[in-house]
Amino acid sequence: MTYEDSIHLGEFNLIRRFFMRESDSQSPKIHQSEQISRVLLGIGDDCALLSSPPDHQSLAVTSDMLVENRHFFSNANPFFLGQKSLAVNLSDLAAMGASPIGFTLSIALPEINEQWLSEFSKGLHLIADRYACPLIGGDTTAGPLTISITAIGQIPPGQSLSRHLAQPNDDIWVSNVLGDARFVLGAIRGEWQLPMSIEHLTHRMHTPTPRIELGQSLRGIAHAAIDVSDGLLGDLNHILKASQLDATIWIDQVPSSAELMEVSHELRRMCTLKGGDDYELCFTASEHNRHAIENISRTLNLSLTRIGIVTARSKNLKPSQAQLISPTQTLIDHEGHTLSPELSALYLQSFDHFKSI
Amino acid sequence: MTYEDSIHLGEFNLIRRFFMRESDSQSPKIHQSEQISRVLLGIGDDCALLSSPPDHQSLAVTSDMLVENRHFFSNANPFFLGQKSLAVNLSDLAAMGASPIGFTLSIALPEINEQWLSEFSKGLHLIADRYACPLIGGDTTAGPLTISITAIGQIPPGQSLSRHLAQPNDDIWVSNVLGDARFVLGAIRGEWQLPMSIEHLTHRMHTPTPRIELGQSLRGIAHAAIDVSDGLLGDLNHILKASQLDATIWIDQVPSSAELMEVSHELRRMCTLKGGDDYELCFTASEHNRHAIENISRTLNLSLTRIGIVTARSKNLKPSQAQLISPTQTLIDHEGHTLSPELSALYLQSFDHFKSI
Repeated sequence: MTYEDSIHLGEFNLIRRFFMRESDSQSPKIHQSEQISRVLLGIGDDCALLSSPPDHQSLAVTSDMLVENRHFFSNANPFFLGQKSLAVNLSDLAAMGASPIGFTLSIALPEINEQWLSEFSKGLHLIADRYACPLIGGDTTAGPLTISITAIGQIPPGQSLSRHLAQPNDDIWVSNVLGDARFVLGAIRGEWQLPMSIEHLTHRMHTPTPRIELGQSLRGIAHAAIDVSDGLLGDLNHILKASQLDATIWIDQVPSSAELMEVSHELRRMCTLKGGDDYELCFTASEHNRHAIENISRTLNLSLTRIGIVTARSKNLKPSQAQLISPTQTLIDHEGHTLSPELSALYLQSFDHFKSI
Repeated sequence: MTYEDSIHLGEFNLIRRFFMRESDSQSPKIHQSEQISRVLLGIGDDCALLSSPPDHQSLAVTSDMLVENRHFFSNANPFFLGQKSLAVNLSDLAAMGASPIGFTLSIALPEINEQWLSEFSKGLHLIADRYACPLIGGDTTAGPLTISITAIGQIPPGQSLSRHLAQPNDDIWVSNVLGDARFVLGAIRGEWQLPMSIEHLTHRMHTPTPRIELGQSLRGIAHAAIDVSDGLLGDLNHILKASQLDATIWIDQVPSSAELMEVSHELRRMCTLKGGDDYELCFTASEHNRHAIENISRTLNLSLTRIGIVTARSKNLKPSQAQLISPTQTLIDHEGHTLSPELSALYLQSFDHFKSI
């Protein structure tokens, strides 16, 4: 009597058919010079097995969950969705300065749509291959479309870019440009009319680029880092809160695409300061490292822009209060004026997955 | 201007309020003699950071997703659900012989129900504390109730209990008793009438016990292991397929509770052989280790029962065919008779999360 004969396209075959590849334990590494923890046993056992990272490297672990109609539209292109699902997790590894080791995928599917699964898997593996981060395990089940990924990376001991490590007088930097994802989303939703075709910008929303190489290059150079997923000022607030510091931001120096430069100040600010879904890195570093950071920018062919400065806490707080009181971000416009409290409040409200229900 | 003032019970506070505890990075370890990878940085950054496991231990990683109305009822007790959500992942670590290090939780919630979250979190932390497996990170979002956990453990190099390591002539063992979870589920569903109160058995369905200590004790003693989550014969089939072997099972020697001993042969067999949700360990070991296994049973105060034997493949296959052909499980009843192919087929059909849509 055989057991699997009775299962046609069941759970186990689903993983094997669409997600499992022979090559996953032998993926090429983007940083060949860096010794990476190897996958000893991938999909198909109770657990994946990884060899211990060499040289006592620390492990970085991150999890993100994407839900239909909340993080993506029902008709989302599955090839792009596969890419984005993994990219947003790799973006968290990048923000710690970690090198990817592998990831697990748990996915609930309302039905078995072979075409959809095939495209989703292709997108997923495209990013997995590009960043040398093989699929090592996971779970599939029936249910409302939900994609849950946990990515694991490694970092040399003491070199992680944690949120609590910002220092007073640090420069605040961001990579590339911000706001395009929100700009495109608003256009799709009909929130604003656009003077130009934004077809070529949609990839910024659908297929964000995790800044893995940048994160690795900033080890020992930057102090704190975060990936901009929920809006620049809101995410920067996490760094400031964890470091118990304040900041001044020159909001009109936040870099944006040529297309966003053509719209009104107000719309550009909304998109760049609180847009979300950018997956660029925001990091802080001593002014003494400006030259090193400009060199990284050239090496990676990735623009890096100074947008502000970390400051000591303006309020005189007891240590017991310091963790409870929210940081102050002073926003300065292109004419050198400090924004009014009312206008600042508008930009400082960030996206929250629960607030927006 | 403050940022978090504007968020009342948003995503970040949700984690902090219900899931984050000061003590999570200093949980007591159940096996104090074993050096465990430490949590360097828990909830509240882009990633959790773990120190490298000592002595070049391998890492075990497992993910499970639980979906409302598929894996649990809508009115499920959140305290029990919290326990079970983590326990099923720890059961996978147990089946590899791994010691837990920590876990991430990604959860989609249809609403913020403080009472529900508080109870769920209590159940989760009860198991986390019992097995020294702290929450290290995760994600919360709005969406249909879905619980996705990834657990990480460590194993001394070369000592993992993998599915492909069974040997011909190995004894096949199971821990404790099987079938109660399915027995209770059937009663709740009205599939069968019961002669007795089964109130005291419901904990076997709601709060399974991950056999972490058993898995650790079997390192170097058992060859292959799996946790019985989808039904004994179906799960055993995974071992046989991975090891390219067959088996003979004395089906009426599969241990069951006193309550299940009182029902018909047929019902007991259905529950014990293909019931699922047991989370006991099924493992194979050389007959030379029977004495050692009986000692483990005494030490852990946990019954371990021999239920069959691994056999060489009955069909003469070319190596290229071996991975494609399903294993043969010969089922023997209490009178020593081999079951008919028709009856065997009935028991060999396992639960599949997609097949049952």
